[in-house]
Amino acid sequence: MSSTPPRPAQPAAFEEAPARRIGVVGAGQLARMMLGPAIELGLDLEVLATAPEESAAAVAATVRLGRHDDEQAVRGLADGVDALTFDHEHVPTAILEGIAGEGLAAVRPGPGALVHAQDKLVMRERLTALGHPCPRWWRIGSLAALEQALAEAGGRLVVKTPRGGYDAHGVRIVEAAEEAEDWLGTHGELLAEELVPFTRELSAQVARRPGGEASAYPVVQSLQKDGVCYEVVAPAPGLDDAAQQRIQTLALAIAEDLGVTGMLAVELFETADGRVLVNELAMRPHNTGHWSMDGAVTGQFEQHLRAVADLPLGATAPLAPVAVMVNLLGGSAEDLAPGTAAALDEEPQLKVHLYGKSVRPGRKIGHVTLLGDDAEDLLARAHRAERLIIDGPDAGAAPTAPTPEGDPR
Amino acid sequence: MSSTPPRPAQPAAFEEAPARRIGVVGAGQLARMMLGPAIELGLDLEVLATAPEESAAAVAATVRLGRHDDEQAVRGLADGVDALTFDHEHVPTAILEGIAGEGLAAVRPGPGALVHAQDKLVMRERLTALGHPCPRWWRIGSLAALEQALAEAGGRLVVKTPRGGYDAHGVRIVEAAEEAEDWLGTHGELLAEELVPFTRELSAQVARRPGGEASAYPVVQSLQKDGVCYEVVAPAPGLDDAAQQRIQTLALAIAEDLGVTGMLAVELFETADGRVLVNELAMRPHNTGHWSMDGAVTGQFEQHLRAVADLPLGATAPLAPVAVMVNLLGGSAEDLAPGTAAALDEEPQLKVHLYGKSVRPGRKIGHVTLLGDDAEDLLARAHRAERLIIDGPDAGAAPTAPTPEGDPR
Repeated sequence: MSSTPPRPAQPAAFEEAPARRIGVVGAGQLARMMLGPAIELGLDLEVLATAPEESAAAVAATVRLGRHDDEQAVRGLADGVDALTFDHEHVPTAILEGIAGEGLAAVRPGPGALVHAQDKLVMRERLTALGHPCPRWWRIGSLAALEQALAEAGGRLVVKTPRGGYDAHGVRIVEAAEEAEDWLGTHGELLAEELVPFTRELSAQVARRPGGEASAYPVVQSLQKDGVCYEVVAPAPGLDDAAQQRIQTLALAIAEDLGVTGMLAVELFETADGRVLVNELAMRPHNTGHWSMDGAVTGQFEQHLRAVADLPLGATAPLAPVAVMVNLLGGSAEDLAPGTAAALDEEPQLKVHLYGKSVRPGRKIGHVTLLGDDAEDLLARAHRAERLIIDGPDAGAAPTAPTPEGDPR
Repeated sequence: MSSTPPRPAQPAAFEEAPARRIGVVGAGQLARMMLGPAIELGLDLEVLATAPEESAAAVAATVRLGRHDDEQAVRGLADGVDALTFDHEHVPTAILEGIAGEGLAAVRPGPGALVHAQDKLVMRERLTALGHPCPRWWRIGSLAALEQALAEAGGRLVVKTPRGGYDAHGVRIVEAAEEAEDWLGTHGELLAEELVPFTRELSAQVARRPGGEASAYPVVQSLQKDGVCYEVVAPAPGLDDAAQQRIQTLALAIAEDLGVTGMLAVELFETADGRVLVNELAMRPHNTGHWSMDGAVTGQFEQHLRAVADLPLGATAPLAPVAVMVNLLGGSAEDLAPGTAAALDEEPQLKVHLYGKSVRPGRKIGHVTLLGDDAEDLLARAHRAERLIIDGPDAGAAPTAPTPEGDPR
């Protein structure tokens, strides 16, 4: 589905022609997976990496070394490109405001949008004001406020640091205010949310261009493991067309309301009565959209680049009735090559994506996808391949239980 | 379809584990389109380029400068990789024999196979000895021999230089021996072939691993324009299952007979009575296989890398009933960006692949693909996109007639 609201009256000068040179702040696997589509589209990509061995830095033609929170480094990147985008959402807002304000480069998504993916309190406040469905939440500035919220919520809350969290990091379930005392000291304010009794997690992804053209992907079902995305089924099983469309409309509305440019992922809780509540927002390609690299006409990395470059968006139609994606989280094999060969041998349909990262237990080191008709069958086969790759061909088929560690995406 | 002959008794030492570092001699668009799949598979690719602005050199992380016929340059590349492969077939056989003989790197395809794609006389002699269907052909060493062949062929022949030709280069239709006198002087021997009254051209692509595992893609129909591949429909319309399988079996047999490693393209003439005759061989990804990047489970560039790395081959099943590919041959637009944006805007299903090359009339500068159900409809839309891209959004919809120039692939 697609919507094209009127173009803003006064686009900035750098929004008038498609961007050709794109700078990516951060060089993790998301930047890495932009490289292939950038090559095919003829876009020049430059990545800002903290070290030359980072996932994208190891394979990009143009790498700049520097930190995402070093103003000179980010400005240096911006200075040589038409548009700036992100591998993660941790670039300080002030740096981006400076770059956008001076017109050094187009910042996509812009700092005014991105702050909603950076600061969970800002996100909750804005979504609530806009009337978008959220869990009950509390702004917590003191132990007393947390005690009061706990009492209102029935004794248990999810407490989150507003900034800097990712995957399971920066998230705690607390039953007593003291359990979050250290965070109150370091962060000043915290976000507390009810524990939503969700039946499953969904993810809705949309892309939006600077002028407002937007396009939605099929809503998918995602399964987390210890707070890390682990498995995705696209489209979400059992979600009827009306529900698909209602959720796509919600995600498109959020993209429009917040003025997002690029990919937006809206992670959702689905409740037993069929409602959805917004859990998190990400303004970049997202783990729950990796299936689209192999499973949709336009993969999310290409789509993100098209949106960021202000090129027309591509079709989001799936290439098969069902696509599944399973993350490769570091297991017992340090060398992934033997298990990868075994998995490819067993499963000629398998698409393997390796991130070139050293293996640590639970670390996201790659993912696999499969297309077909039957989600259960595809998942079983994808998990079999997963175990071969992460534990090696000789480790047997026993499932591993990775412990999340990590990466901010 | 797939066949797995027994593994040779004594594989070379470097054939025992999958290759991780792959060197590509040549840095044209074929090397460029290997980069995305190499990144996803976690293979390190190094390209040997004659200039840093070449198609693949401009976007590869690791580039070595040097010529394909400079022994030290090719050996330098081989020395740092596990396996060597090619963007084109013009590397002198002696250089490759030295590298393979010393075990400096695995050469895939090996020089003993590659010579059949390098030297058209060697190819004709071998295919004829093996009983594979060829046009009538003559080895021409003198004007008198060419006169005699012309008489036998009814007064017209296709004359080809055995080595160094590509696209329309190195090919002439002659009616008098003198028309090839200059080539006889420079090449010594020439290949002469009957003009086959073909109804259309087909192309059969297969991949083969060092141990013999092989896999065939659907046979496609290709249309040339002035000797340059212009348009491909996959699978070939109207080719029934039996004919598809018969031609795939032929291509698999040639790959096995010649000991090919990597992708093999067998370009074929189809005659009015339904026979096929081998026209040319290419031992690398081929223009007639570009559709598979977007249209098959495993694209030809990924498949070539898997074969060259000695990883299990991927499924070759198409992702849609029909895929079409149309080449972008340089037209009136020097800057492809405005037309590309217009084409993407008109056609959200379109996949655009740009090679990063400067525009010259008729030069291969990219290609587009579309997937769907109806070949005629898809071709019309792909050609409309082609004209927008090569002539720009303001040039109207009149078809251009590019003159081939160019590139050895």
